[in-house]
Amino acid sequence: MKKLKIGIVGLGKRGYDVLENVLVELDNIEITALCDVYDDRVQRASDHINEKCGYRPSLNTADYKEVIDSNDVEAIMIFAAWEMHVPVAVYAMKKGKCVGLEVGGAYSIEQCWELVKTYEETKTPIMMLENCCYGRREMMLLNMIEQGLFGTIVHCDGAYCHDLRNEVSNGIKNRHYRFRNYKNRNCENYPTHELGPIAQMLGINKGNRMVSLISVASKSAGLHEYIMKNYPDDETLVNTVFEQGDVITTIIKCAHGETITLTLDTTLPRYYTRNLCVHGTKAFYDERNNSFVFDGEELDEFNWKPNWDNGEKYAEQYDHPVWKEYLKQGVQKGHGGMDYLVVKDFVECVIENKPMPIDVYDTVSWMCITPLSEKSIILGNQMVEIPDFTNGKWVKE
Amino acid sequence: MKKLKIGIVGLGKRGYDVLENVLVELDNIEITALCDVYDDRVQRASDHINEKCGYRPSLNTADYKEVIDSNDVEAIMIFAAWEMHVPVAVYAMKKGKCVGLEVGGAYSIEQCWELVKTYEETKTPIMMLENCCYGRREMMLLNMIEQGLFGTIVHCDGAYCHDLRNEVSNGIKNRHYRFRNYKNRNCENYPTHELGPIAQMLGINKGNRMVSLISVASKSAGLHEYIMKNYPDDETLVNTVFEQGDVITTIIKCAHGETITLTLDTTLPRYYTRNLCVHGTKAFYDERNNSFVFDGEELDEFNWKPNWDNGEKYAEQYDHPVWKEYLKQGVQKGHGGMDYLVVKDFVECVIENKPMPIDVYDTVSWMCITPLSEKSIILGNQMVEIPDFTNGKWVKE
Repeated sequence: MKKLKIGIVGLGKRGYDVLENVLVELDNIEITALCDVYDDRVQRASDHINEKCGYRPSLNTADYKEVIDSNDVEAIMIFAAWEMHVPVAVYAMKKGKCVGLEVGGAYSIEQCWELVKTYEETKTPIMMLENCCYGRREMMLLNMIEQGLFGTIVHCDGAYCHDLRNEVSNGIKNRHYRFRNYKNRNCENYPTHELGPIAQMLGINKGNRMVSLISVASKSAGLHEYIMKNYPDDETLVNTVFEQGDVITTIIKCAHGETITLTLDTTLPRYYTRNLCVHGTKAFYDERNNSFVFDGEELDEFNWKPNWDNGEKYAEQYDHPVWKEYLKQGVQKGHGGMDYLVVKDFVECVIENKPMPIDVYDTVSWMCITPLSEKSIILGNQMVEIPDFTNGKWVKE
Repeated sequence: MKKLKIGIVGLGKRGYDVLENVLVELDNIEITALCDVYDDRVQRASDHINEKCGYRPSLNTADYKEVIDSNDVEAIMIFAAWEMHVPVAVYAMKKGKCVGLEVGGAYSIEQCWELVKTYEETKTPIMMLENCCYGRREMMLLNMIEQGLFGTIVHCDGAYCHDLRNEVSNGIKNRHYRFRNYKNRNCENYPTHELGPIAQMLGINKGNRMVSLISVASKSAGLHEYIMKNYPDDETLVNTVFEQGDVITTIIKCAHGETITLTLDTTLPRYYTRNLCVHGTKAFYDERNNSFVFDGEELDEFNWKPNWDNGEKYAEQYDHPVWKEYLKQGVQKGHGGMDYLVVKDFVECVIENKPMPIDVYDTVSWMCITPLSEKSIILGNQMVEIPDFTNGKWVKE
């Protein structure tokens, strides 16, 4: 079997995670190039591949262009800092190297158009590696929606709730891009984990599209209080003013009247959730207590606890076929198994030259939320339009 | 003991509920007048008072002015249709009759100013009877916040989630005001159940104020689909176009940078919740799974179920003193006991001439959300300013 030759750009926390949990386990790829601006990260990755797979990638570099230009690389996966996602992807597409792009928001709308236009000119396949589109819960809901069980969907909620105070505060030390982003920007900086699955449920770019959004930021208090408590002697940190609000709420409107709310909540004490919530005319689902309600169900008027966690019961019946099979075969490591599914899908689509399940239009529709939310906040919470990156190709009979 | 002489204006569902669950149980009041535009409602209420208390109110009328003008009435309680709340309250204040005002949104900002100005001219006590400010959960959180356990609060969520499809669809038959409101308007029509408690937590009108809001409405699909399924032969209903969106999301900004989201969700299948959520720098609470997280707590990174329902555990420790006492004495009927507490507080404040716990400024700050959300939606989801009804009296050192 011929193996797909992959170059990895970006070997920080996320890149190394995917390497360790998924890539070294796949037998249809060969990692031929490693790239990071920090040499020790490249070395650690090389060591790990050597240990697990018995070879070392021949190209090790700090220059992503070298990876892309290499004749020994057919596809690249980008796990670099957010700022580098689009430049690296565009360069790769121009050179005809397929792109697997880790999640993250864009920095401008122009950048999104550049991705689209480069794709349309080159037809080089690109896919956003949105692992949450492969989550068991998300795929189950998508499956139920496709079966019509929710009726007309009128509203969805999603969130990225993750206490990142430790990660952000240690960003300088750990060379993590979140520090500089939280210091300088104020926006929905990480929308795709929740929005990707919701966009699929609402048929975005496939008969529907997102038309406008508004974002509102709360004050920024969480990081500073955390630093004063935990690092009171670190003068740099104590004196850092973070522009990023603690909670960013975004409301998106879609072409057919659906609304979506997104919440970014990453600098306060809390547990991790994505708070997926689907409101249809025939059913309701809330991840926060994993409960379904179906139209016509008899309910206690003011007691909803009997429904808590009934998602467990329905999972058996409604799990997506992909997950039914996956559970049989044995779920792999990496965020409850979804990392494996998304990477596997990307690799197979490249090898078999199949259309990308998350294509360039999906990718930019989700990434553009970040600069648009930034714009809305800068303009005093104005409603701003979301471009139609498909130039009309979303319209269906 | 001299009893407070009360006239009741509005004896539909809510007015009769409060009469039945609370008023006939109080021994410090006498109901001296009954008013409703429908005579049968007055008759039913009179019968109930006679059965439970052994007397009949001497005044029975369809004209609220007669009630207010009566020498035998010292205070009135208004449970009439939303449209009548302010006119009746203003007339009563001008005549020096204390007002207990059932919850509901206003129809215009001018109407809110009229309440304020009438109060400032007459000093007649008025209180919004917001029962949810007396809920056990809400008062526990307020108690914890006042003890500093949440640190700096940066964001709160609240909602009125209640499947009212049956009530609205049968509104003509049942002479219920929701039908005409849902047919003609599109707004956050019922904000106070969740906003009242949140406003108290954020010190609104007491060192803080709400400065602006934006509202976004989803499409309206729930009522029509419900009617097509349940009343397909009712031509009037089948042909009714409801302007009210199924889900209305509102984001409010406060003077000190806090944000509040409100969700109105009343025309889709679901259980009842108010979804109270408090995000502070030292603690987090979510009603949807009744869970607290405190800063520094060790958590499973991606599993929050261990925290579900830990609110039960904390209740013992942090119940508000009012509820600790109430639980000892025995909780009364009416929405889990809170109806009794709010009415009792109102009656005692009138009898003892104490300041109203929910005063005219609180009342209009909460009611004004309705016309402002309507305006925001009409103007294409513009951010609109929230007036300072205190004219600066909210500012504290």
